[in-house]
Amino acid sequence: MPINFASDNWSGAHPAVSDALSRNAQGFATAYGASELDRKVERLFCDIFEREVAVFFVATGTAANSLSMALLNRPGGVAFAHLQAHMLEDEGGAPEFLTGGARLHGVQGRLGRMDPDALDRAIRLFPAEFVHSGQPMATSITQSTEIGTLYSLEEIAQIAEICRSHGLPLHMDGARFANALVALGTTPAEMTWKRGVDVLSFGATKNGCWCAEAVVVMNPDKARDMPFLRKRAAHLFSKSRFVAAQFEAYFRDGLWLANARHANEMAARLAETVRTTDRLHLAWEPQANEVFAIMKTPTAKALTDRNVYFHPWNPHGAEVSLEGDEGLYRFVTSFATTGEDVESFSKMLAE
Amino acid sequence: MPINFASDNWSGAHPAVSDALSRNAQGFATAYGASELDRKVERLFCDIFEREVAVFFVATGTAANSLSMALLNRPGGVAFAHLQAHMLEDEGGAPEFLTGGARLHGVQGRLGRMDPDALDRAIRLFPAEFVHSGQPMATSITQSTEIGTLYSLEEIAQIAEICRSHGLPLHMDGARFANALVALGTTPAEMTWKRGVDVLSFGATKNGCWCAEAVVVMNPDKARDMPFLRKRAAHLFSKSRFVAAQFEAYFRDGLWLANARHANEMAARLAETVRTTDRLHLAWEPQANEVFAIMKTPTAKALTDRNVYFHPWNPHGAEVSLEGDEGLYRFVTSFATTGEDVESFSKMLAE
Amino acid sequence: MPINFASDNWSGAHPAVSDALSRNAQGFATAYGASELDRKVERLFCDIFEREVAVFFVATGTAANSLSMALLNRPGGVAFAHLQAHMLEDEGGAPEFLTGGARLHGVQGRLGRMDPDALDRAIRLFPAEFVHSGQPMATSITQSTEIGTLYSLEEIAQIAEICRSHGLPLHMDGARFANALVALGTTPAEMTWKRGVDVLSFGATKNGCWCAEAVVVMNPDKARDMPFLRKRAAHLFSKSRFVAAQFEAYFRDGLWLANARHANEMAARLAETVRTTDRLHLAWEPQANEVFAIMKTPTAKALTDRNVYFHPWNPHGAEVSLEGDEGLYRFVTSFATTGEDVESFSKMLAE
Amino acid sequence: MPINFASDNWSGAHPAVSDALSRNAQGFATAYGASELDRKVERLFCDIFEREVAVFFVATGTAANSLSMALLNRPGGVAFAHLQAHMLEDEGGAPEFLTGGARLHGVQGRLGRMDPDALDRAIRLFPAEFVHSGQPMATSITQSTEIGTLYSLEEIAQIAEICRSHGLPLHMDGARFANALVALGTTPAEMTWKRGVDVLSFGATKNGCWCAEAVVVMNPDKARDMPFLRKRAAHLFSKSRFVAAQFEAYFRDGLWLANARHANEMAARLAETVRTTDRLHLAWEPQANEVFAIMKTPTAKALTDRNVYFHPWNPHGAEVSLEGDEGLYRFVTSFATTGEDVESFSKMLAE
Repeated sequence: MPINFASDNWSGAHPAVSDALSRNAQGFATAYGASELDRKVERLFCDIFEREVAVFFVATGTAANSLSMALLNRPGGVAFAHLQAHMLEDEGGAPEFLTGGARLHGVQGRLGRMDPDALDRAIRLFPAEFVHSGQPMATSITQSTEIGTLYSLEEIAQIAEICRSHGLPLHMDGARFANALVALGTTPAEMTWKRGVDVLSFGATKNGCWCAEAVVVMNPDKARDMPFLRKRAAHLFSKSRFVAAQFEAYFRDGLWLANARHANEMAARLAETVRTTDRLHLAWEPQANEVFAIMKTPTAKALTDRNVYFHPWNPHGAEVSLEGDEGLYRFVTSFATTGEDVESFSKMLAE
Repeated sequence: MPINFASDNWSGAHPAVSDALSRNAQGFATAYGASELDRKVERLFCDIFEREVAVFFVATGTAANSLSMALLNRPGGVAFAHLQAHMLEDEGGAPEFLTGGARLHGVQGRLGRMDPDALDRAIRLFPAEFVHSGQPMATSITQSTEIGTLYSLEEIAQIAEICRSHGLPLHMDGARFANALVALGTTPAEMTWKRGVDVLSFGATKNGCWCAEAVVVMNPDKARDMPFLRKRAAHLFSKSRFVAAQFEAYFRDGLWLANARHANEMAARLAETVRTTDRLHLAWEPQANEVFAIMKTPTAKALTDRNVYFHPWNPHGAEVSLEGDEGLYRFVTSFATTGEDVESFSKMLAE
Repeated sequence: MPINFASDNWSGAHPAVSDALSRNAQGFATAYGASELDRKVERLFCDIFEREVAVFFVATGTAANSLSMALLNRPGGVAFAHLQAHMLEDEGGAPEFLTGGARLHGVQGRLGRMDPDALDRAIRLFPAEFVHSGQPMATSITQSTEIGTLYSLEEIAQIAEICRSHGLPLHMDGARFANALVALGTTPAEMTWKRGVDVLSFGATKNGCWCAEAVVVMNPDKARDMPFLRKRAAHLFSKSRFVAAQFEAYFRDGLWLANARHANEMAARLAETVRTTDRLHLAWEPQANEVFAIMKTPTAKALTDRNVYFHPWNPHGAEVSLEGDEGLYRFVTSFATTGEDVESFSKMLAE
Repeated sequence: MPINFASDNWSGAHPAVSDALSRNAQGFATAYGASELDRKVERLFCDIFEREVAVFFVATGTAANSLSMALLNRPGGVAFAHLQAHMLEDEGGAPEFLTGGARLHGVQGRLGRMDPDALDRAIRLFPAEFVHSGQPMATSITQSTEIGTLYSLEEIAQIAEICRSHGLPLHMDGARFANALVALGTTPAEMTWKRGVDVLSFGATKNGCWCAEAVVVMNPDKARDMPFLRKRAAHLFSKSRFVAAQFEAYFRDGLWLANARHANEMAARLAETVRTTDRLHLAWEPQANEVFAIMKTPTAKALTDRNVYFHPWNPHGAEVSLEGDEGLYRFVTSFATTGEDVESFSKMLAE
């Protein structure tokens, strides 16, 4: 029986999400995002964010991020993001392609978070009217970060303040938005627009849906071009209600928060297990649903041989010092991770 | 109780497809198209097409068409398609955008089918080495066509022969592939590569899935760039098995063919109803699951008032002559259309 | 001794333009368009257009047109131009590419001029909020047209009025701006912004320069992105003064108007010659510096054999009826055409 | 009387180049690169490179680099270049835009040269079939580098060998090709294809032309798409002979080598001057026509006040340690720099 910590996108869909798809499968509904269910779910987003927002459903996180960048882009545009951000490392050039050639400029910072001073210096490398280097167009932060850490609300506000001082909008890649939200014990409004976030990639796929992501534009007046940007990228679904139905189930009775709390709790227990063995040690303190640990290659191999799934992680951007045959490894939990998984893993380590 | 002939993408998903999604929701599976289910369904495609093919799942027909064009494109590329093809009229610039600027050149032809001579003349407008006009890169036909007609197998072969003579690959937009297949009573292999089709947009969404489309490249050696083209357009799904699961249900026990036969049968009965009234008349003989009829505006309004859904159709490319207050209207049937729908409509007309 | 009516871009540069390049070759000047000479020539444009304009030097007409479109473009953008406009027929996909995928929609109209009603109908095919067809973003007219005809000032105003009613800006492709200007006996201001033109491709290359074109944005406030659009397309010249120097010579002492008058006069004399022979006849009345004539293939061959250069012209968009072995041919005059050229041609026809 | 070390593109054109433009201004010639002069100069390139090469004239170095990248690009493509390469720092996103979204990945290395091991590691970050990170498509080196240093022939071969081992073509940005060539005392063939360079941006603008650059593709069979790539980017000139004429003069009687030798000699004398004063010191040894020096802000200001032109240089990528109010500054020499300029500067420092 495998124990799977490979990725939160290796898990399937939560039963409530499947049920919603079955429930909505019958009957006719207006296509291309204009159905009653689409409209209803858009209202749910407004409720959740405590303001009028413009919401655009897509089905991959890469689409949400890339279309967000496309919305904010300007000719010769340059966006700023952490050097190890998903957009820079794992989206196969989609942000560059779907913006029509924008550049992503990597910014350093400890533990997956951009250093505010480094961000400020980076933006200053691109003077507003200097055509040779390109014009800054946006900053993007990831919450929770690629390596399972968090920006505090104050840190978000601080980044936003730097953006404002340079006239730049702030985007948040929220592929693991819910995990960050419950970890900080705050609200969607507090973690976004009240701290200066202008556009959000709201991810639900990793947290229990099949494929449900949304671009949330906090000021609907600035979303005017998005329907065309989405359509020209072929990301407008004819039977759009299948995304809406996932979101409806996701939000119903707080499923999304429960799923995220569960995943974070599993990660916390996994981290505790790691702390109590000397075969691995934590690379840094996990804050959401990802645990990064350092172990020797033979240990990793032994675990793999016993059907534990997890990924090696490129330490090139991580502040860890590896010795000899040590490697850095990522363990991800999700709604589908069980207490038994962690328990079995713990026992395995204790043997 | 509405009677809905608005579009086959207003219908939801067939119960077998929903069930497949529920059945596959649990457990972990490798992400990004590498799961066992993905592989299994890819094999199904090879079986169905009676040869090794390369298959790439996407979730919109526009993505399938646009990525097909991107695969075939060359710098300054020009693709040829019928003047009223979906790619030219209804995809919001996605083919142009996702190819990085290819041009679609409209070709005339009666009843939704490109005239072979007109195609040949059109291609000759773009001499191979003449940079000013751009270089031909592909031809695309739609089967069944935008207006519910069909290319015969011989006509496909004829178009393909013209393409070959100019060194151009042939793409088929198969958004309604199954409807055409059962109407012609032929096989996927006969309707595609045996007649010279190189790349196919295989559509399942309109015929009972939520969002399941595939680019099928008949010669896998020519598909090398497609994984990167799909990824950079943000169309690679993390939980890709949700598309695979739809296809598995779609192909199981011939559901796809049964759905298409049902839709075509409903269209045939609808056409028969139209033939027997003098309130409407057929614009042309339907050959798949779309019926185009001409009626006076008051008639259309009366039907709409009685909750019959259908769309007016721009006659600009259609060979119909409208008199006075007549208009052209489209009625679409699908797996979800019932005999009762047609019966009720018929009775309404008889009143 | 050949007689060359092949194209106005087969001529070299006027001696005054060469001299200006020699005169400005020495000494140092700020690069990338910021030299004193650049600034001085920008002021000349403001004087000539009788208002503050923003001016951007480029070196090909295709760049001027494509960057104009890029400035005006919006996501999913569609521009309207005459079916036989240079942008649609001869720019190798550059407008599509440099806009990042805009579509050019051809509009019919007699003798190279868009029919206003056809333009209005074409724009209405793209309802403002209908994502599937794309959003209208600009209209472009060519003055003088591809086939040597002219829009009257009233016709320009009429086109502009239709654009205004749809909220679209109006671009003018002025590759042969001067020829049109002197033919109409009007001023740059009257032929552009006073009639509703927003952005102009101002061509000087065909009329005596080596490579001098400019995008003129009538309202400088709307030109903000152009420096970045030009740079990202690699059309910003380091030694930009070599373009500025050409323009300075071009405008000095009315050289540009004199060149254009000469070219038009040569065309008028050429047309007169054609009228007086029965070996050719005019396809339509020339209004600027291009003469289109119909003749039999053997006549064309005989002329070619005697070293007369001219081009056959695709009649697909022209309102001419050709009989038997007749063909349509284009003869272009320029500043470099001499009275002797026309005289010799006339004698040849008389033999 | 100013002393101008600002940039080699602040100089105008060499008199021989101006004369060539005047000489070729008269008469008619086939447009769009098909004239006899164009063909003749293409042959000159073949002679100079001692093999059949395909040559494409453009007019900016950014166009040459960007179109080279476009020729080599593949979907999701990633190119490798030094972190401070011109393509990464100074081309306003043109390489990204004209390739349709390729990514430039910066590689570290001392003194403007990529470290071979760092290059190898960088390429390995992008496994060939891993769609998430993109696929490597080319490496680009700059000769001479952005900061006036050189790759030795052995170093070029070493970089090429790494590229070969990964199946990547090698591009050379030769904006200052001639300066490098004469500094190394080698031949164009030895410095390029005999060391593994596949595509070259051959620059002549900085070394005495107005605007003459060429993409040189060493294997003409691989240049097939370039005419369309150039046209769709609007970089094909109608009166193309004006570029050809510049090159003809540039190559005649070894003008290009003489100009480069002169510029390098001036830089060497300038460096010697710097060595003999304690007001500035060399940041590193200059190897071509650029001298980088460190001085205190007041010294820089005093020089500027006395009309000496030079640019401050961002030290972010340079291996210099600056103390207190020191800054890094660049001085560039060219064909137009005189011995008197250096002499006067020397005297100024001695005061």
